[in-house]
This record gives sequence, structure tokens and C-alpha cells, in this order.
Amino acid sequence: MFYSRSFIVTMREDPSEAEVISHRFMLRAGMIRKLASGIYSYLPLGLRCIRKVEQIVREEMNRAGALEVMLPGVQPAELWQESRRWDFYGKELLRFKDRHGRDFCLGPTHEEVITDLVRREVRSYRQLPLNLYQIQTKFRDEIRPRFGLMRCREFSMKDAYSFDVDEEGAERSYWNMYETYCRIFTRCGLKFRAVEADTGAIGGSFSHEFMVLADTGEDVIFYCTKCDYSANVEKAETKTIFTYRDERLKEIKVVETPGMKTVEEVADYLGVERERIVKTLIYITDFGPVAALVRGDHEVNEAKLKNFLGANVIYMADRDKIQELTGGPLGYSGPIGIRMKIIADNAIRGMRNFITGANKEYKHLVNVNIPRDFSPDSFGDIRKVQSGDTCPRCDGLLSMMRGIEVGHIFKLGTKYSEAMKAMFIDKDGKEKYMVMGCYGIGIGRTVAAAIEQNHDEDGIIFPIPIAPYHVYILPINVKDSSIMEFSIKLHKNLEEMGIEVLLDDRDERPGVKFKDADLIGIPFRITVGEKIKKDLVELKFRRDGRTETVSSSHIGQRIVEEVKKGINAQN
Amino acid sequence: MFYSRSFIVTMREDPSEAEVISHRFMLRAGMIRKLASGIYSYLPLGLRCIRKVEQIVREEMNRAGALEVMLPGVQPAELWQESRRWDFYGKELLRFKDRHGRDFCLGPTHEEVITDLVRREVRSYRQLPLNLYQIQTKFRDEIRPRFGLMRCREFSMKDAYSFDVDEEGAERSYWNMYETYCRIFTRCGLKFRAVEADTGAIGGSFSHEFMVLADTGEDVIFYCTKCDYSANVEKAETKTIFTYRDERLKEIKVVETPGMKTVEEVADYLGVERERIVKTLIYITDFGPVAALVRGDHEVNEAKLKNFLGANVIYMADRDKIQELTGGPLGYSGPIGIRMKIIADNAIRGMRNFITGANKEYKHLVNVNIPRDFSPDSFGDIRKVQSGDTCPRCDGLLSMMRGIEVGHIFKLGTKYSEAMKAMFIDKDGKEKYMVMGCYGIGIGRTVAAAIEQNHDEDGIIFPIPIAPYHVYILPINVKDSSIMEFSIKLHKNLEEMGIEVLLDDRDERPGVKFKDADLIGIPFRITVGEKIKKDLVELKFRRDGRTETVSSSHIGQRIVEEVKKGINAQN
Repeated sequence: MFYSRSFIVTMREDPSEAEVISHRFMLRAGMIRKLASGIYSYLPLGLRCIRKVEQIVREEMNRAGALEVMLPGVQPAELWQESRRWDFYGKELLRFKDRHGRDFCLGPTHEEVITDLVRREVRSYRQLPLNLYQIQTKFRDEIRPRFGLMRCREFSMKDAYSFDVDEEGAERSYWNMYETYCRIFTRCGLKFRAVEADTGAIGGSFSHEFMVLADTGEDVIFYCTKCDYSANVEKAETKTIFTYRDERLKEIKVVETPGMKTVEEVADYLGVERERIVKTLIYITDFGPVAALVRGDHEVNEAKLKNFLGANVIYMADRDKIQELTGGPLGYSGPIGIRMKIIADNAIRGMRNFITGANKEYKHLVNVNIPRDFSPDSFGDIRKVQSGDTCPRCDGLLSMMRGIEVGHIFKLGTKYSEAMKAMFIDKDGKEKYMVMGCYGIGIGRTVAAAIEQNHDEDGIIFPIPIAPYHVYILPINVKDSSIMEFSIKLHKNLEEMGIEVLLDDRDERPGVKFKDADLIGIPFRITVGEKIKKDLVELKFRRDGRTETVSSSHIGQRIVEEVKKGINAQN
Repeated sequence: MFYSRSFIVTMREDPSEAEVISHRFMLRAGMIRKLASGIYSYLPLGLRCIRKVEQIVREEMNRAGALEVMLPGVQPAELWQESRRWDFYGKELLRFKDRHGRDFCLGPTHEEVITDLVRREVRSYRQLPLNLYQIQTKFRDEIRPRFGLMRCREFSMKDAYSFDVDEEGAERSYWNMYETYCRIFTRCGLKFRAVEADTGAIGGSFSHEFMVLADTGEDVIFYCTKCDYSANVEKAETKTIFTYRDERLKEIKVVETPGMKTVEEVADYLGVERERIVKTLIYITDFGPVAALVRGDHEVNEAKLKNFLGANVIYMADRDKIQELTGGPLGYSGPIGIRMKIIADNAIRGMRNFITGANKEYKHLVNVNIPRDFSPDSFGDIRKVQSGDTCPRCDGLLSMMRGIEVGHIFKLGTKYSEAMKAMFIDKDGKEKYMVMGCYGIGIGRTVAAAIEQNHDEDGIIFPIPIAPYHVYILPINVKDSSIMEFSIKLHKNLEEMGIEVLLDDRDERPGVKFKDADLIGIPFRITVGEKIKKDLVELKFRRDGRTETVSSSHIGQRIVEEVKKGINAQN
């Protein structure tokens, strides 16, 4: 491809709209352009990357025995009413009426459509297991789309759905996808980690997120430094370790804490460590109000609390509600004397003589003790883990890193098959519900995450398997016939050998070209300059900036080897 | 691919919803399933076909120098307001509001989005010409979707848009696409014809439709039996040939024609040929009412009349309007005494002593003559051509055939670039409008048209280049180990040689398998039966039903050759 015919439109300046690195470089490199909030056009350079990821996904899904289908984007309301998500999905589900006034939506996901298809076509256990996938455009009407392809409204997604005869089969399908995802992200040339995740609103029994590791990632991951445990911040657990403080029980007292609302303020004012304080947070749930107690240096993990309670809905009480429920203002809540369920984090179990709010303005209680002064209804793991916490699986310590979620696998169980009556006749002649799983990969998000993981201050450093081109040929002077003749010949030779080549045939200053080459991040750059008269060119590796002088008669074969190595390294 | 794992779900019975052959066979072969009116899911077998067509389209578009992009399906109203199509497009444009109440639509086509993109990115003539294409899902809210993929609401389309510095460049881009389309449909293995077409509402100066020829086609094509002229029924012209009837002018007379409204009734009643009668049709246009005159055996071509008048709007007057404008009832209109523009078809020019309506109930005029009794404002080619009419290019005769429109190319000119100010700086430093073209191919429609053209009563007969699989291996008895061992080995060998194989491993009666094999139309069937013990298999050609007994050691190589031949025949 000649640069002049490639519609690569780079930008010198950082666009003001871009808050994150991938968004900035994708705009600057001319990979994407915004059409409307959270809605992007993919330009040729960006689409080439997208297609590479799609192709890897397709090959690995096929290899895993999944079958590609294509389901409609426009979906009738009736199916969503059947699954009851029409009512529960909220405003992210874009709804509209067609010209005849019938209700439709733009599919943000396809559980309903695929379950409807499969329940119509599958009658017998002999047709199962079945894993159907598609690479398709989704729409989610995000309230605040941002970060380019990281959180947009219209996006390309690979979604797959498995159907099995029983739980055991569903688990086999699940782990098949787990391994397939590992192969996919490995083949994309990405450093990633599969982490345990909360199943959230979609329900079901287990779930992993695939995180591309990047310091700029939005998501926090905890991993064990000793075993292979890792989980996202919502799910991460810690072993129930608590040490009884060997202290004499002191007399409970009320102390004045004027204006001191936060743990830090109270601790400083009373001259104690934060570990001495117990925070009391008041939540509203579908079972009524709940007080959640965590140590002063800990944070409540709402997902874990929700799961612990088996609640469907959970949110923090507001100022007025706290006053009503505890009799005291926000910032002074405590467990003593309140009438609601009290759940205490495991870490509180061994505490003695601790400090809590007194449910009165400007007052705290010191020397509080369990069970002398109050008893929680239950203890449980309801807090966010921290670096240094103990691994729930071994005695290793947890450490933290950041990542970007690019894939997610769920075991759905019979949630949808029961709601939509997706049944089959089993070997024993009985009608049973199919056991489902669902598996997603954000295609554009994977490209964005790859850039967050692989870049420097000059631009993108594409992993070879998903680079839009493998090689950038940079003739220093397009008016020098020996330079251009060699460049064009090399371009042709490399293309014939299956290498994807971008030849910068623009009549621009070398500096402009070097800058663009670095920005768009093609893995190998071949600079053709004056030395071509001595049959020499320069090979530059984008990743580490290393350069080599290579004989012009060997550069073709050298590139073929480097590209093959770069792609196979991940296979 | 093993049949049992392929999710091919065939139907024995003709589905009642299917009115046309392609729809019927695509449902029966398990290629598609309906989700809602005009909205289909593509099952694995159908999607394989779609992907083959897409890949041929992609390769040929790339070869033509076009660049692939991907534009959003959800488009902001503002762009459609700029082009003024927000008001003119009608209900086929599906409109909705996002969660913030902003107006959007689901793109039925992408002129606005692409013009917006290009006007932002292209500044200089050096960036032109540019041809950008995408293969993308469109939505058109058809009032009456039907015929399966022939007229649906959500469909996959390849749309391309070219941008040039001047008319000459735009024409080069146009003919480049014309040739590319010829290559695409040839490579798909289809018999087709490029026909001249009316530019219709999209505007612009010239246009071709690509028609897949099929007796069941909805569209009528006229072609010259002598030269290469061909055009669709809307556009087809005929040479202005008329013979003056060598007759004495007779005296004009009123005759009673009680209850005789149609040309046939009047001709029979008066005992004359239909060619003696002149029909008068009253139209309402944006220039006021117009009377269109055609010979009794001819029909008005509204598209040609509209173009002849340069009108934007044209429709037939209703009963009341005719009474008001002519003073007489529907069925008795005539040109004499009416006060409106009169356009007569060229064929009327030579007529003598003809019959017209008298603008009075139950009365016609006989022996009407031009210019003695009235004079039309103009003569022109405003009628539909018929088989046997003279070619407009040579002295050959026109003949008729039927087809299905699968592609359409337009030269748009500056319609959109002017409306949306898509300008560039030319060599001479002046700002100019880009000259555009647009080019569409219906991907699903091409598959449907291929089936309309290639089938028999038993099912589909896929052209080799777009067949979902090349070969169908049919073991007569899956419980016979020598039959199955050979079948599985052959399947593996063929796949390794790049052949796409479907192995019918179902434990079904041979009759069921033969029926399914014919229905889904795979080009080559290899039947593995008892003769395998003598190292023989049967090769059957789906197209002509021919069978051959082939040595089992040669069948692999034979298939490779046949497939290669079948694909290369079209290259």
C-alpha cells in the first residue's frame, strides 16, 4: 500500500477530547473518527487492526468447535419481555417503534435472540452441545460514553452462547471457552490475566474476566504472589485471618468529636490508629436496611455484601434516611442501639475496645466490645481486599495491578432457558432445560487495550499479530530515483511474500515521515536513504528503537523471518 | 465439518410464509430464520455463503484501489438535516431519540456520514481520488418486507463512495466500479447483465443496475438482440420511428361508448384495432396538471415522463381531480379542449383519424387528427418499451428478460458535496466541490438471486465460488466401519488440501441424506457405499445430476481439480 493512497490522516496535536492514551493515539494515527458521542467511524488503518483481531477470534472460535452465525441488531420487544429484561435493562437499552408502531430495541447483547433461535431448532440431546457465536455490532446507550473505543455506544463484539444438556457439559463448554480466550489474547500478542469476577446482574454461577494488563487500566486486579489466584476488585476475597487482641475490656464511654466525621478525622482527634475504629455504613436492600461494619482502614465491597446477603438491590442510604434509621446524622452511625440487620466484616472479629459512632451528633463511643455491647447478626467477607492481604487459596499475599477488561465469560445456568422455555428431550425421554453459558470479547476494546499496553511517548507500538501493516518503508527522498526504485521493488517483493507493507511515498521532509512512522506504530521500519548506493538500508524495531544496517539484498528475507517469528511467538 | 456438529437444520415441508423460491429454499436448507418481519438471523450454512460473497467483494474492491472503512449504523439527525434528506426520506428511515433526547436514525445508506468524514479529512487535490467502501448492516423500514432476503429491513450491503476532483475523474471512478462489479458477479459464478437505469430520487447523471438473470426475477430488462444495449424497464428507450399513415383526413365525430372505459372495450365496441386509439392520462406534477398521450397498445413510463418534464413529483390524478380538470369522468379523457400541458408519445406523431376520449361520459371522438383538431405541447419518448421495439442505439430489435437487481452504481455529481460543503483546494489554488459517485451491492440479495438463478425442484444448486461447502461426503451406512473409516479419512485429506467438506455422519436412512444433500445444493457429492470394498465411490455433480464411479484413491485429487476449475472458471 502506498501511503499517498492509504487515507491515513495523522494529526500533529493531541486532540482535546481524548482523555486516555489509546483514544489519543487512535485519533492521532487516523484509526478512528468520532461521528457522535460514543459513536466512531473506523478509518482504513483502524479497520485493518480490528479485522486482524476478528480473524484471530474467528479462527480460535472455529477451532474450539463453535459455529459462526449472524443475528439481527434490531430485536423485537416481545423476546425481551419474555426474559423480563425489557423492564429491568434500563436506559442503556435503546428502544424505538417501527413504522407500524411495534416496539423494538437495538441489541446490546443477544441472549434472548439466540435462546429463541435454539429453542425452536433444537429438540433432542443429540443436537447438543452447541456453541454459536457472532462478530456483530452492538449498541448500548451509555450515559457518559468516553475514552474512545474503551467505552462507546456502538461497538463490535464477539458474543458466543453455549447450550448443554447438563451442568457438567456446561462446565466443559465454559472451560473450553476459557482456554480459547487464553489462546486468542496470546495470539494477539497481549499480556493479560484471566481473573475471577462477580456474575453481577446477568446471574449464574461462575465467571472470569480477561484483563489486558496496563498501568493505565480502569480495573483493579488482585493476584496472589504465590499461587495463580487472581480476581477483580469486586470479587477478590481474602482468607479469614484475625488476631484476638489480648486486651482487658475497658469501660465503654461517650466522647465528644465535634465536626469529626471521617475515620481519619476521628482517629487523629482521638490520637488512635485507624485500625481501632469500626465504620458503620447503612445500606438499603430489598430485605430492608442493613448496617455493614468494616475496620476503619478497610472499605466495604458492595458486590460481596450484596452476594453475602443474597440481595437483588443494594444502595447506600442518604442523609435523611440515615437520620431516620439511626436517630443520628451522617458520619456518626454506630451499631449500638440501631434496629436493623448488622453484618460485620471478618476482620472485626478479633477487635477489642474499639471506637464506633454513637448515633448522635458530634459523639462517638470508645471501648466498644463484642459481644458485651452488641452482637452482629453475622460475620462475613464483605470488604475490599488490599495489597498485602492473605490469598484465599494459600498463605501467599495478594498484590495489586491494573488492567482493561477485554473479555468476559459467564456460566449462565438455566436463567434464560427457564425464562424462555428452551428445552430438549434428554436420553431418558424427559424434557429438560438447556444449561447455558455466554462469552464476550470487545473487539475494538481489545485494540484500544493493546495500545494502552504497548506505546511510548511517540505513539503506538503494535504487537506484530494485530499491526495494521508489518513493515513501513521510508524512502528519505522520493525524488532520488535509486532510493524510490529500490523502495518500490522491495514493496512489491514483500507483498508477494505475504508481508503487509506501507510505503511512505509522500514528498515530505524525513522528519515528518519519521514522526508518522513512530505514531502509527508499525513494528518494522526500513529506511531507504543514501546508503542504498552501497546496497545498504536501515532496519528499525519500533518496540525497542534498536536499529541495524542490513544489506539491501537480504532485507526482504530478514523481514519475512522477523514477521513470522513475531506471529508464531504467540501461537 | 461433521453434519452432526454443523447446526444445519433442514425442513421437509415448504414453509407457508415463503412466496419465492430463494426464500423457500433458504428456510428449508436452514440458511436463515426469521426473527421479525423483514429481519433474519443467518445460520451457519447461510452465513458461510454470505461470507464467500463478502470476500469476493472485498478482494475486488481492494484490487480496484478502494479502501475499506466501517461507518456507524446509528447516525445523528444533524447530518441528514444538512443534506435535507431528514425531511424527504419518509418512513423507511427509522428514527429515534437516544437517552438524552437527541435525534438519530438507523442508516439506510451512508452518503451523509461519508461526505462528513471526507470533508473533514480531505483538504487538497493531492488526497484525491478516494474511494471508500464498507460491508455493513443497513436498516430500511420497508412498509411490506417480503421474499426473505430479497426485500428485508435489516440487510448486509457493500456500499462505496468515490470522491474526485472533476467530472472526468468521477467518470473514471464510475467505470472502474462498473468493471469491478462485472468481475465480482462473474467470480460469484452468476449470469448477470449491467443495465442502464434511471437515477431516481438519488439524483445525478448516470447509473447502471447489475441484474442477476432469472425467470423469477421481479425486474424487467430490455436488451438489444443486435448490439449490447440493455436497460431496465424504467429507463429503456426506443428509437423514434413512426410511419405516417397514408390516409385522407376524415371528419371528426362524437360517438356513443356507453360504459366503455378501457382501450380494449372501446376498440372492441367500435370494431377497430387498439393502435387506432390514443389514451389520455392526467398527471399532477409540481408544474401543474399534465396530459400524457400514448397509443392504445402502449403504456406510459412515469419515470421517463418525469425526466422529460424535469419534474420532482408526479402522480396520477384521482377520479375527482380528472372530473375537475377535464370536465368529464375517468375513462373518457381526451386532449381536445382541455387546459393543461399535453405531452404526446413519439409513436402518436404519424397517426391519422384516431380515437380519443371526448371528456364527456359515454362519449368518444373518432377521426381526430393532429394538428387539425389539437396540437400537443411536445412529443417525446414517454412510453414503456415492448419486445420488438427498435433499439435506441442501432437498428436491432429489443427483447425482454427478467432479473434481480443485486448492484447499483450511480454517478452522484456534486449533489451531496454541495449540500454539505465537501470542498478541496485544487491545483490552481481554488476551492472546488468534490465530484462523487456511490456504488452498492446487496450481499444477502446476491445469495438469494444466485438461488433464484440456480436451483431445481429438489433444492439449491450453488455456484462453486459461493457454495457454503464444496463437497458433501455421504456415507450410506455410518455403522459400517469400512465406509465410515474411509469417509472420515477422505474428509480429513480434503480439508488439508483446502477443500470445504461436509461429512454427513448422521445415522439416518440414505433417502433422508440424499434429500438433504440435494436441498442444500453442495456442488459435489461423494457417496461412500458398499463399493468401497472394491475401492470405488460415486461422484455426483449437483448441477446436472451426472454421476461417475471413481476409484477411492483418485477421488481426492479429482475433487481438488473440479473445485479449482469451478472457482477459476469465473476468475
